Amino acid sequence: MTSALLLLEDGAVRAVDPAAPIVRADDLGLLRGESVFETARIASGRAVVAKEHLARLSRSAARLGIDVPPGVEHLTQAAVAAWTQPDGVLRLVLTKGGTCFALVTEVPEETVRAREHGVSVVTLTLGVSAAERARSPWLLGGVKATSYAVNMATLRQAHDEGADDAIWLSSDGQVLEAPTATVVVVRDGVLATPPPEVGILPGTTVEAVLGLGLVPAEVRPVSAAELAGADEVALLSSIRGVAPVVRLDGRELGTGPVTARLRAAFEAGL
Amino acid sequence: MTSALLLLEDGAVRAVDPAAPIVRADDLGLLRGESVFETARIASGRAVVAKEHLARLSRSAARLGIDVPPGVEHLTQAAVAAWTQPDGVLRLVLTKGGTCFALVTEVPEETVRAREHGVSVVTLTLGVSAAERARSPWLLGGVKATSYAVNMATLRQAHDEGADDAIWLSSDGQVLEAPTATVVVVRDGVLATPPPEVGILPGTTVEAVLGLGLVPAEVRPVSAAELAGADEVALLSSIRGVAPVVRLDGRELGTGPVTARLRAAFEAGL
Repeated sequence: MTSALLLLEDGAVRAVDPAAPIVRADDLGLLRGESVFETARIASGRAVVAKEHLARLSRSAARLGIDVPPGVEHLTQAAVAAWTQPDGVLRLVLTKGGTCFALVTEVPEETVRAREHGVSVVTLTLGVSAAERARSPWLLGGVKATSYAVNMATLRQAHDEGADDAIWLSSDGQVLEAPTATVVVVRDGVLATPPPEVGILPGTTVEAVLGLGLVPAEVRPVSAAELAGADEVALLSSIRGVAPVVRLDGRELGTGPVTARLRAAFEAGL
Repeated sequence: MTSALLLLEDGAVRAVDPAAPIVRADDLGLLRGESVFETARIASGRAVVAKEHLARLSRSAARLGIDVPPGVEHLTQAAVAAWTQPDGVLRLVLTKGGTCFALVTEVPEETVRAREHGVSVVTLTLGVSAAERARSPWLLGGVKATSYAVNMATLRQAHDEGADDAIWLSSDGQVLEAPTATVVVVRDGVLATPPPEVGILPGTTVEAVLGLGLVPAEVRPVSAAELAGADEVALLSSIRGVAPVVRLDGRELGTGPVTARLRAAFEAGL
């Protein structure tokens, strides 16, 4: 698989062999999952909503006590310029040890399939109280750190249950998010998505898509019961875009009209 | 600060410069916090309860779908042999990308101080339901992965509140663990410590210390109310050993007789 790797060191960007090791053993980003990251789509020679990704990276870094080095914007531009394919995954990583890099890779085949055909999803508990998470900043709700072991274990659990993805529910009955995506539900033509206040990551894709004003939308707490009774459900994320949930806990959903409109807008380029 | 770094590659161990990068940008251990690790004390030329640490490393690895390469025991022995100081911190790390290393460092001064003088502690919520965590294996209770961003943010919160460390409480009123230690409470001469079933890491130090049979001990759920009313509280971990909690949420506790006995046993070498 083709990939490109660029390092930001002392304000300068240089391309390095993606197979070369770049992180030290004592980097807290490696030892303690104390890195922040962003994943942006490269399409038509630009990084989609790059500004919003960089802003979120800065907010995450501040929460972990990581300094953002000057030149991250330049790193992003250089990574996009280094990628000649029409579609790509740009990953920006900044470790607490001060390593800052951009890794560009091809879009995985399963992601392309999910864009086209949607995903089957199971709900799984995240075991957390949305209310407690909202008022406990040390739980890092809304911070995009690389401490993703539970996210990945949740995806493995979903696969074990025959699904492609999962939607996390809180212990107090709220819809939270998917391990790598934002959840939207549609009922009677009106879209709803949970607010960052329940301790989830503010999604750059959902913000951009809703900003187009194509559908009536509400950012408010969504209960597990609402999810179960929704007309349409979709997972929004940077690379996969607007993925219709075609099966939810065994219930067939298909792709509804609101999801289809959002997906068309995403694919047309935000 | 002196340190030693040893890499395990294709079954062979080699010493490398601790300042040299050893992990690739695309290693899931770095990108997703999907590494497992153990931290063991080196004292008197051996790694304390090394066998138990290696067994736990294997259990953690299995939960993350990481293969343990042959030679990890040899890596451990080589790391101990490479360290000539009387006290040290041995860290074993195994990433999902297949990088396996041992990093040996000096014991931080604040850890030495905490061994001698104890720690002040605040209770903080982990926001999770102990009951839900116990029945949800994808939440990785009991797995020692490097996804420690919340652990480190909790320690920063404790420091911000003027304490040295924190004890996590569950949303359903249970004592869980500290971000890097096991909690024990003593009431009327009887010690109690929460069981792994509440979703916490089974502590190697608490297991070794209790195995000596020095004090009556119970492994059972401990409520937040019991903690608040305890005669003695201590945090047990591999490097700091048995650290008395000398102040808990503002209440002065001092070092009680049970904690003192356990600490003496630890310092005499398990």
